Amino acid sequence: MRTLILVGHPDLRHSGTQAFLHEAAQALTNADWWDITSQAVTTPAQIAQLQGEMRRYDRLIFQFPLYWYSLPGVFKQWLDTVWTAPFVSGRPGEAPALAGKELGIVVTFSQAAEDYRLGGKEHFSLSELMRPLAALGLAAQMRLLPLFPVAQFAYMPETKRQRLLVAYAQYLSLPAGTHFADRARWFSDWLTAHASEDQEYAAWAAALAARQEQLTDLHDTLAEMRREEDDRNGG
Amino acid sequence: MRTLILVGHPDLRHSGTQAFLHEAAQALTNADWWDITSQAVTTPAQIAQLQGEMRRYDRLIFQFPLYWYSLPGVFKQWLDTVWTAPFVSGRPGEAPALAGKELGIVVTFSQAAEDYRLGGKEHFSLSELMRPLAALGLAAQMRLLPLFPVAQFAYMPETKRQRLLVAYAQYLSLPAGTHFADRARWFSDWLTAHASEDQEYAAWAAALAARQEQLTDLHDTLAEMRREEDDRNGG
Repeated sequence: MRTLILVGHPDLRHSGTQAFLHEAAQALTNADWWDITSQAVTTPAQIAQLQGEMRRYDRLIFQFPLYWYSLPGVFKQWLDTVWTAPFVSGRPGEAPALAGKELGIVVTFSQAAEDYRLGGKEHFSLSELMRPLAALGLAAQMRLLPLFPVAQFAYMPETKRQRLLVAYAQYLSLPAGTHFADRARWFSDWLTAHASEDQEYAAWAAALAARQEQLTDLHDTLAEMRREEDDRNGG
Repeated sequence: MRTLILVGHPDLRHSGTQAFLHEAAQALTNADWWDITSQAVTTPAQIAQLQGEMRRYDRLIFQFPLYWYSLPGVFKQWLDTVWTAPFVSGRPGEAPALAGKELGIVVTFSQAAEDYRLGGKEHFSLSELMRPLAALGLAAQMRLLPLFPVAQFAYMPETKRQRLLVAYAQYLSLPAGTHFADRARWFSDWLTAHASEDQEYAAWAAALAARQEQLTDLHDTLAEMRREEDDRNGG
């Protein structure tokens, strides 16, 4: 599973949410990370190169803060430029470049998640507001992953951030549609494997602020999430 | 009725559709026209000035070509910059700046209109794809006008363009919810009034390529549209 995270944020350097996600992606996954706002794309050669690089991944993630109910302008402008019509829809007789690949959407916002629903403060669900991106994914013949919303990161207590860390790493790396028990096992295995490779684990631990209890905490979080899932399933 | 058309097009000078709409707006209405892509907005003072000017209108029109199922990036970036949160949502204890004003959306695209529906080639309706703008209008406490789609202008025969001209001028100028007969009468009166004012009519006629039969054609088009409407209503 090769994953590419396309991050479009007008003020990336000052975003605590994106810094957290970046750290998680680096420490816990092999996903690549593009800061598209730093890509000066002006020539056809640059566009062709970026298109070529995107082809090499199995999963693309659009990651951005919600700006007026959609992508920030800077992200949209990049899409308008780099995702040309032939790239998205294919040339006659050819499959589109991204056909069969997966498209994930990680959208962060400062409102409460429950504001986005019928009769809620923001009137529409996030799934409704993301329709243009769904349409783009469908035009490219990509498979849509379930939306990954991150609400009010700034107010998130540490335990919830821990869960976000696990869920985000899984979103980037796990095959789609994996059952929860398998997802948990996969991640647990991943942690164990990396814990035995001293160097990798050291880097991971350092990236996670070098807290010694991190690994245990993650295992505990996983165990807790699994218990809740079992309870929900009446098991 | 003071109307402001906000046009965001990455290549406005080469757009035949926008040139046609611009000519219609200038010749047939008193609406103002902003090419927002030519507005270099960088300072808070510039933002405040644009906000102040927008307050003076009763109806704002977002006008743009559909780029990947939504606003072009250049338009979104302008919105992200100029439509600040306090401007849209108001400050505590204050009504939002645009509360009660009308928001229209004129969206042009090269696909067939029927591609935008459930099971159609583009999967989603334009109303669905415009949800983010609807949400923005609702956040600003504006009243949404019915969407004004312009499909495949390049292939439009002259008779259809004539109808577009009338419908567009009405969209810009007529009070919302006006019954068709009243709309037709309003426009007919407008034409007659302007025909009697030699100078105004001359400018208008010139703007419409100075064709002598223009006025008659428009009256004919209106009469035809009215007959069709009557037929539909079984009248």
